[in-house]
Amino acid sequence: MKHLFLTLCALCATLSLTAQEALWEGPLPLSPEQHADRSVTFRYTAPEAEKVELSGDFAAQPLPMTRNAEGIWEVTTEPLESELYTYSFMVDGVRVIDPSNVHTVRDIATVSNLFIVAGERGDLYSVLQTPHGTLSKVWYPSPTLGIERRMTIYTPPGYEEGKGRYPVLYLLHGMGGDEEAWPALGRTAQILDNLIAQGKAEKMIVVMTNGNAIQQAAPGHSPKGLYKPQFKLPKTMEGSFEKSFTDVVAYVDKHYRTIAKREKRAIAGLSMGGFHALHISRTMPKTFDYVGLFSAATMRGEGEAFYGDMDQTLAAQRDNGLKIYWIGCGTEDFLWKMNAQFRAKLDQLEFPYHFRESDGGHTWRNWRIYLTEFSQLLFK
Amino acid sequence: MKHLFLTLCALCATLSLTAQEALWEGPLPLSPEQHADRSVTFRYTAPEAEKVELSGDFAAQPLPMTRNAEGIWEVTTEPLESELYTYSFMVDGVRVIDPSNVHTVRDIATVSNLFIVAGERGDLYSVLQTPHGTLSKVWYPSPTLGIERRMTIYTPPGYEEGKGRYPVLYLLHGMGGDEEAWPALGRTAQILDNLIAQGKAEKMIVVMTNGNAIQQAAPGHSPKGLYKPQFKLPKTMEGSFEKSFTDVVAYVDKHYRTIAKREKRAIAGLSMGGFHALHISRTMPKTFDYVGLFSAATMRGEGEAFYGDMDQTLAAQRDNGLKIYWIGCGTEDFLWKMNAQFRAKLDQLEFPYHFRESDGGHTWRNWRIYLTEFSQLLFK
Repeated sequence: MKHLFLTLCALCATLSLTAQEALWEGPLPLSPEQHADRSVTFRYTAPEAEKVELSGDFAAQPLPMTRNAEGIWEVTTEPLESELYTYSFMVDGVRVIDPSNVHTVRDIATVSNLFIVAGERGDLYSVLQTPHGTLSKVWYPSPTLGIERRMTIYTPPGYEEGKGRYPVLYLLHGMGGDEEAWPALGRTAQILDNLIAQGKAEKMIVVMTNGNAIQQAAPGHSPKGLYKPQFKLPKTMEGSFEKSFTDVVAYVDKHYRTIAKREKRAIAGLSMGGFHALHISRTMPKTFDYVGLFSAATMRGEGEAFYGDMDQTLAAQRDNGLKIYWIGCGTEDFLWKMNAQFRAKLDQLEFPYHFRESDGGHTWRNWRIYLTEFSQLLFK
Repeated sequence: MKHLFLTLCALCATLSLTAQEALWEGPLPLSPEQHADRSVTFRYTAPEAEKVELSGDFAAQPLPMTRNAEGIWEVTTEPLESELYTYSFMVDGVRVIDPSNVHTVRDIATVSNLFIVAGERGDLYSVLQTPHGTLSKVWYPSPTLGIERRMTIYTPPGYEEGKGRYPVLYLLHGMGGDEEAWPALGRTAQILDNLIAQGKAEKMIVVMTNGNAIQQAAPGHSPKGLYKPQFKLPKTMEGSFEKSFTDVVAYVDKHYRTIAKREKRAIAGLSMGGFHALHISRTMPKTFDYVGLFSAATMRGEGEAFYGDMDQTLAAQRDNGLKIYWIGCGTEDFLWKMNAQFRAKLDQLEFPYHFRESDGGHTWRNWRIYLTEFSQLLFK
């Protein structure tokens, strides 16, 4: 006992001051602090700063923070609706994350803090006391692209237990994203765990690919090293990734216990991923009975060879009689008009689809909602 | 083509100013920048700050940074040896991470930036052009603790391809850590991928548990929500986790293609995880033929029931004739003396062991080195 106590004391003493500060909350105030009315207080210690603001996706404009005598800046929001939010501070014009909150998330090249306001929607994005699926980082060969590539795969609760076979949802990210985007910002595993536990979604495998044909994996996870992510990459919307998608489906059907039939396969994506889902599903027309376009870029891509026959392939897809073609778009989305034009084309082709108009724009908030709604329609 | 171009322009315009800054590197300088001589330049924009310093595990003291006319603070290190390093900035006494570097890692309650200086050791911790294993977050039931729990499992390259069976290394974290620690700070997947590719380590499964008996999962990954990690938790060194380890081994042997024999099982841990490895291996004496204690806490834990019979169980473990009992400790480690006492006890018991004395102290740098050396000795 005495030994144990002394060891713990020594262990504490040996840690650097910086680490101790973080560990024992010396100068680190509680932040964020959620209140019973769903308002949230944020605090940041910066005695020397002239101006500190809170920037978050819960407020249209940065919120000014005020300084107390101890040099701690503070602001309390209005009551917030149940949701997952991201935020950062602006300290004398410089963006910093909250050192009191270790929960961070990367959106392309920006790291922000994360918090969830509990309630109907927030709970759906939280880890609850339910059975949990497995989330894996898997490498697969892409003979089409000539490289090994990484993807994130969710297998539902019970997958490891039995010998059963499962349907598959292929879920694609937007421009600047990668195979880390849906599991992190999209909360795929939490949403599926919770919907499955509630009996609202079928048990399914979810495959989250990397849609940047020149990348093997997300920045930091490939032989290119710990480099800075870029928004625009070459070869994203010119057919390369779409053509290589047969490699993905072949790998998944070979290595996972899938039901390798069109009626048990879905493909969906956000923004550029919606573009990919559109073009992959029309050029692999007997592969996916469910297609989801979330705030999708719906135009042709570059290159006549792959994108030239859009009307004919869409007509063939229509004739194949897929089950659900689902389009979701926010009224404030900059791709709203393009989506309206695409729907007009589908109308002209008498191509049946489901349209989900939401408020808001081109945001993860909408994409999580679309995934929640779309996944409940699948494989029934 | 025109559509595509306009869409991209619109997509750029729609992103918030904050995101744009981060994406298009407007005010964000290049940092860290590595030079041919392995020196590294760090930059941080803070026009209003009075004093900015660089704090990193490559320097005993924070390095002062100097400000240029544009308000960018800068410092260049001495040439650094090949290694994985973490760092942060101190801005007027406040610790911040580098917004130019999205590669971060959490050590208990502190988030830092990460970079790797290439070369012999740095390459071992990097993703290289080799076959890659799969890293999974897996939930398992612990009947002993009465909760579902999460662990990280590495399966080696080729595991998914065949029907072969593999040996297992159980790898345990230190106080304040969890199932995220070894994969993130310990670079387990990279080390194993690289050693296996070089033919230096056998293909093995590596199971990285959560050693905090009161936790289901790492902070942010359990029903407790996005809370702040703590260094000291109840029930860490009093037998609860050790007793529940049969649940872990049973789950892994049932759900993975293991070779469920003592000569194909290893257990190792750092600090508190070394303590756990010591006590688990002596109380499950015919289970592990390889034991690794990395900077281990080697005293008895709390409670006579579990820790009272240390000499007898160690003698039984000795008599069972395990293959390698490996002890690694740095000469500057605060647990050095305790390790020396433990070795004296082993000597007294005529318990054979391998002792690896290193320089340095109680650091991830040493634990990565110990994993690299220990894993090459296993299952041969």
